[in-house]
Amino acid sequence: MRGDNLRTSMTEGFQVTSIDGNIFIPPNKLSAFEHPEECGHVDWVIVALKSSSLHVIPELILPLLDPQRTRILVIMNGLIEEDLIHALKEHTGEDTSVDSNLKCCAALYAGMALICANRIAPGHVDHSYAGLLNGGLAASNPYRTTDDNKQAFLDLWQPTSVTVDYEDSVLAGRWRKCLWNLPFNGISVAMGGITVDKIVLDPALRKLAYQVMTETIAAGNADLTMHNEPKEVFLCDDDKHRMMDLSDKMGPYRTSTMLDFVEGRPMEVKYLFTKPVERAQKLGIPVPRLETLVAQIEALERLRQ
Amino acid sequence: MRGDNLRTSMTEGFQVTSIDGNIFIPPNKLSAFEHPEECGHVDWVIVALKSSSLHVIPELILPLLDPQRTRILVIMNGLIEEDLIHALKEHTGEDTSVDSNLKCCAALYAGMALICANRIAPGHVDHSYAGLLNGGLAASNPYRTTDDNKQAFLDLWQPTSVTVDYEDSVLAGRWRKCLWNLPFNGISVAMGGITVDKIVLDPALRKLAYQVMTETIAAGNADLTMHNEPKEVFLCDDDKHRMMDLSDKMGPYRTSTMLDFVEGRPMEVKYLFTKPVERAQKLGIPVPRLETLVAQIEALERLRQ
Repeated sequence: MRGDNLRTSMTEGFQVTSIDGNIFIPPNKLSAFEHPEECGHVDWVIVALKSSSLHVIPELILPLLDPQRTRILVIMNGLIEEDLIHALKEHTGEDTSVDSNLKCCAALYAGMALICANRIAPGHVDHSYAGLLNGGLAASNPYRTTDDNKQAFLDLWQPTSVTVDYEDSVLAGRWRKCLWNLPFNGISVAMGGITVDKIVLDPALRKLAYQVMTETIAAGNADLTMHNEPKEVFLCDDDKHRMMDLSDKMGPYRTSTMLDFVEGRPMEVKYLFTKPVERAQKLGIPVPRLETLVAQIEALERLRQ
Repeated sequence: MRGDNLRTSMTEGFQVTSIDGNIFIPPNKLSAFEHPEECGHVDWVIVALKSSSLHVIPELILPLLDPQRTRILVIMNGLIEEDLIHALKEHTGEDTSVDSNLKCCAALYAGMALICANRIAPGHVDHSYAGLLNGGLAASNPYRTTDDNKQAFLDLWQPTSVTVDYEDSVLAGRWRKCLWNLPFNGISVAMGGITVDKIVLDPALRKLAYQVMTETIAAGNADLTMHNEPKEVFLCDDDKHRMMDLSDKMGPYRTSTMLDFVEGRPMEVKYLFTKPVERAQKLGIPVPRLETLVAQIEALERLRQ
């Protein structure tokens, strides 16, 4: 933890208000560190930074890693794995040409959380909706097997009540997460900062959200085809309806990008929006509605400066 | 004139501030009427209402019309002629099945003004940019010839310094006006109310404006083809560049729809945006970017209520 978060948590404790029951950790039971060096090697590192802070991750987590045992779970938005693995390898001097080999840790997982958690004050996280946590293997130390890695991920969550799903295809998981993020984060920001209920309850915006999902499925499936992923993991129309059903239950939820926008923080434009659009364009898949939203979001980012 | 406009103009005079030189009409030289009945029959009626007030036009102008001599010039936004002619005929009991025949006046012209004039206070119009005034015949009393009608339009403007262009095809003129209105009114509102300079100076919005123009040309030319208009009047890429050049010179101009939006007035959504989109959809021309903007504008209209 840093800054206000650390100070408040160390003096007043750390609290999570949640629809699944609140959590409070008093200061004397909280293990919080300002610098990773104070912490030492650990079994698991969960990285839940904004993708706009991707460049600081290697320095932040390398002191925590034991290459033989530490596993990294990156619960972040957007198509970030390629760039993150590349950045870690550059810092440790590894061969950057093989994407799925990573020697600085036992394994690196991509995590996709549809859980609606936001930090609303220093030392206070609010959790307003409990969806799924998906995760899958993005890169591994060559001496670890795929089964070993999968089991370690499932073991991590086994003692908890979090609903997890192991993704055999991280790329499919990422695109499935895009299926929610692109329409809902996208429209919420492009419309100047509106909540999810405003989108699902307005007939024109609801239709637009469906159309953006249709474009996302086309781009995602073309990307999965290009990466020789099995047909079973492809996105389908059912996924669209499932995402809309989830969103119907979210109420006046403020999407993460909308919160960044209204609070004047950098938005996760690159990994959340620009990367998927670029990938669609490279694959020749037309995504005009998504392009329109992204153009508007990029412009909003510039206009507020 | 009505309300504050009439009161201010009758007591303090009527002023136009213009890049072409200001105009001031003192109260004792101003002929302004609150009710059209006070005015009597006239040679020309220029209708410059918002298209959102189309339904009030017949009652407002019928007292002014001498069927033998009065000509009507409708300088309004959007694809409105069909509905306006239909409304006039309904009021006078004419046969509504023949669009181009109209017996309540000598002729009805569609006018397209790219002149950037806005009423900025009661009795005060500001004119910040002088573009073209296009006009063409939309309907005529059967006893008037096409040449006679054209000459009358040119004669009206001859004594002035206004640059006019007579459109042999009103439909082409309308679509050419859409070519500016759809991207610039559209983006200015969809972005929450921004000025034209913000659009042309932002790389993503400038590109989006071009893309919306490309969609508009496709839809417009399909409509012109369907109406058997001659190829010479079709829209082309040069028109796009001309519109962008014009817009580059407009500075921080607030588009008419953006002004309506930020001032909480009804926006001209139906004739300016929904009609062109519906026509494109009917003709099977994909206009996904335009549809996205229109969905956003329709939602903004609902969200502010």
